Amino acid sequence: MSQRLRLLVEYDGRPYYGWQRQDGQPTVQGALERAAAKLDGQPVVVQGAGRTDAGVHATGQVAHVTLQKPRPVRKLCDALNYHLRPDPVAVLAVEEVDESFHARFDATGRAYRYIIQTRRAHLTFDKGLIWRIPFEIDVHAMQEAANHLIGEHDFSTFRDAACQAKSPVKTLDTLEVFRLADRVEITTTARSFLHRQVRSITGSLVEVGRGMREPAWMKEILEARDRTACGPVAPADGLYLERVMYGDQD
Amino acid sequence: MSQRLRLLVEYDGRPYYGWQRQDGQPTVQGALERAAAKLDGQPVVVQGAGRTDAGVHATGQVAHVTLQKPRPVRKLCDALNYHLRPDPVAVLAVEEVDESFHARFDATGRAYRYIIQTRRAHLTFDKGLIWRIPFEIDVHAMQEAANHLIGEHDFSTFRDAACQAKSPVKTLDTLEVFRLADRVEITTTARSFLHRQVRSITGSLVEVGRGMREPAWMKEILEARDRTACGPVAPADGLYLERVMYGDQD
Repeated sequence: MSQRLRLLVEYDGRPYYGWQRQDGQPTVQGALERAAAKLDGQPVVVQGAGRTDAGVHATGQVAHVTLQKPRPVRKLCDALNYHLRPDPVAVLAVEEVDESFHARFDATGRAYRYIIQTRRAHLTFDKGLIWRIPFEIDVHAMQEAANHLIGEHDFSTFRDAACQAKSPVKTLDTLEVFRLADRVEITTTARSFLHRQVRSITGSLVEVGRGMREPAWMKEILEARDRTACGPVAPADGLYLERVMYGDQD
Repeated sequence: MSQRLRLLVEYDGRPYYGWQRQDGQPTVQGALERAAAKLDGQPVVVQGAGRTDAGVHATGQVAHVTLQKPRPVRKLCDALNYHLRPDPVAVLAVEEVDESFHARFDATGRAYRYIIQTRRAHLTFDKGLIWRIPFEIDVHAMQEAANHLIGEHDFSTFRDAACQAKSPVKTLDTLEVFRLADRVEITTTARSFLHRQVRSITGSLVEVGRGMREPAWMKEILEARDRTACGPVAPADGLYLERVMYGDQD
């Protein structure tokens, strides 16, 4: 009798070539599958809710895995972390779920956070974990620009050429810009996102924040439905998959 | 005409064998002296207010340096950081000071912060930047224990064998323990500290916090004036030199 588990996963994306397993490259999925295989004594597939890019982080990725040797759930979290250590990937919670649960297909929402720090000096503690910008940015102008993107739109402008989604139409439920001392954070939620959508939106918002563009420019480039109209794409450094939602519960 | 400068310095202590210059080892003083020497075109000595140990961090170290080629102060911060990059040492502010200013001897106070995270999973983003403890700790008991140490005492119990201070008597002005979600922080201020005093106090406070000892035990070991009475010394990971005070101003 096998056991399907839902994992809450945190990772520092810096050393990884993204979530998705790749031969010969360190990936988050690869690290988790290796740990789960050691535990189960055989090859295992770990399926994640979101396939984060190289260098992108997660504080609340969700994944599922099926183990052939059932164990007490309360011991599984420590056991997986034992095999993951010292990789910067940690399982924060494990829950036993129905055999039909699918981390990716059952997800009803995703929340991302993008962290920017405005300062002239290079980063010391947070290099690769934050996008440092050496000038001030106007968060009110950024929020005004962001408001044009909320709701259902064709996001072709903010979609990477490699995106495999069938349609460029997505619905942004929220897109908020706020300041905490010298940090500017952008949070956004949607059922799902296009490839590099959050980084593309962030890069364009920063163009507005630094005064290169007016807030109304965001509406213009959205309506252009043209990738070449997009501002520079923000680096992976500041992006965090923060939460994955399932139906009524998180 | 030379120019004496006061530098506000931040560093991630992980890659360094501490503040103090050592032949053949990476140190924070060494990194700053190399950068300043490149700027000034000749060897330069950088004197810090506190000689932090290997792996200890700073968000507010203060140092002074005398340059032989005066420059506009507003350009010096960027110029020093240009030469420091990509080292995780950054100069946050530069001020021109009197030739008599001495970062170490003129300091009238130091503030340290020790950061603990209580969680079972290994660290991902903050490895080496926080002391992770895999069990809960009682901050109220820790504060009760801490209160025995505030004021002027013989701190022989909390002093490393290698300490070079003339006297083991120091005055702790403040010693506070507080929780922020799963983080426990300990902050302390004094005119000066003994070698490893903050880490020695922290390690003993955690013994109380985890219930191995009663708060009154802290008074007992303080009064023993005996290094062997001290609890396990906390690791360098969680310690930050946060601020150095000078006379009336910070």
